[in-house]
Amino acid sequence: MIAAAPGLTVALELRARLADLYAAYDNALNDGELERWPELFVDACVYKVIHKENHDQGLPVAVIYCESRDMLVDRVVALRETALYAPRIVRRITSAICLRAIEEDGLRLTANFAVFQTMPDQPSEIFLCGRYQDRVIDEGGVLRFAERLCIYDSTIIPISLVYPI
Amino acid sequence: MIAAAPGLTVALELRARLADLYAAYDNALNDGELERWPELFVDACVYKVIHKENHDQGLPVAVIYCESRDMLVDRVVALRETALYAPRIVRRITSAICLRAIEEDGLRLTANFAVFQTMPDQPSEIFLCGRYQDRVIDEGGVLRFAERLCIYDSTIIPISLVYPI
Amino acid sequence: MIAAAPGLTVALELRARLADLYAAYDNALNDGELERWPELFVDACVYKVIHKENHDQGLPVAVIYCESRDMLVDRVVALRETALYAPRIVRRITSAICLRAIEEDGLRLTANFAVFQTMPDQPSEIFLCGRYQDRVIDEGGVLRFAERLCIYDSTIIPISLVYPI
Repeated sequence: MIAAAPGLTVALELRARLADLYAAYDNALNDGELERWPELFVDACVYKVIHKENHDQGLPVAVIYCESRDMLVDRVVALRETALYAPRIVRRITSAICLRAIEEDGLRLTANFAVFQTMPDQPSEIFLCGRYQDRVIDEGGVLRFAERLCIYDSTIIPISLVYPI
Repeated sequence: MIAAAPGLTVALELRARLADLYAAYDNALNDGELERWPELFVDACVYKVIHKENHDQGLPVAVIYCESRDMLVDRVVALRETALYAPRIVRRITSAICLRAIEEDGLRLTANFAVFQTMPDQPSEIFLCGRYQDRVIDEGGVLRFAERLCIYDSTIIPISLVYPI
Repeated sequence: MIAAAPGLTVALELRARLADLYAAYDNALNDGELERWPELFVDACVYKVIHKENHDQGLPVAVIYCESRDMLVDRVVALRETALYAPRIVRRITSAICLRAIEEDGLRLTANFAVFQTMPDQPSEIFLCGRYQDRVIDEGGVLRFAERLCIYDSTIIPISLVYPI
């Protein structure tokens, strides 16, 4: 369920709509329907996969840094058509989501994620875990990510990062 | 929370009832109350634990394949009385659940799962992860699984599969 | 989402309030805002981290045993000021929460948790998993934990237990 930070009152309907957005995100990536992934963002979005230390220190270096939905679309095309990588199954479990603040430029939310990776003929293993830090806005009745930061905990994993987190 | 696929409107009450069904399932297995597990299925149910590759290719081979609630009951009896296996604690974390479609023969839902296993004097480890693909129907006011496919990602884990997923 | 045990009717509003409490707990610990953690308990609370075997057999030995909010505060002060330990990131994913019973002395709930730990320059790994067994009461409109048992599955992990679970 979408939970709310202390002091914040959130209507049940909004909680449900946010849950739907987050589920759509996870499903697009977990089920390999990558083309659906950019649709969940606004045009002028920010999508970053960044190490926790860099993020906490305000350093800009990120392993993935996209500044528009078009860049997300490019990334999907690259994954489908040009990128070379060993096949794998990537599956994420996202925790309860927490609405932290309702601000003029959107809803601020966080959630924790654990991503598991399964290579052929290998057992499933924990690939990385971390925290989503999101800004979501309502575009004519549709909730979309204006910003999604995927802040991961371990320095040494994303060498083999292929899919979005 | 039970989330819904894009375009699907789902009443909050139904979301809550589905959440209760899924929690009852996880609790029955996580808490070792195996006898409660078959009660969550209809009589003429299908329960399968199947590898993702087999499922995706439409191949029928599954490591567990039950076609009725009675077969689930048999399985519990076997686990309680006749099966030989090393003791272990199996614990699953199920992601947010997504209602994908409302069809004549029931509700179609998916969820992702991670199952952790702890053997005596060993650390907990990831045992397997994958996706539930479910059909749920309302039997006189009670929601039950008409179909639950447990589609796991790794080929090499379920050799030691003892408990239902 | 907060789910309810079979037979229990729970208003959506209460489910949402419970989700908020659980999210606040996870966020306080996952985000390193340890000072917020004791605020989620009543004064005369019980907080235990205990191995499943000990708990199941009614044995009292626990790796952490606090009997008041003051003891939780002490623990936070110790972690901030005196304890020596290698830096690490600890992140928990909590499953759907299940309201099991509504009793005179509070609400009885359970949830499953998986805790991941990341040491510097190491990959993230599963640290421990287990079950929360909780009693929650309403103090003048604020839900707080009167009791939280963190019942973990593996005997061998918590040697290096630093943070609360």
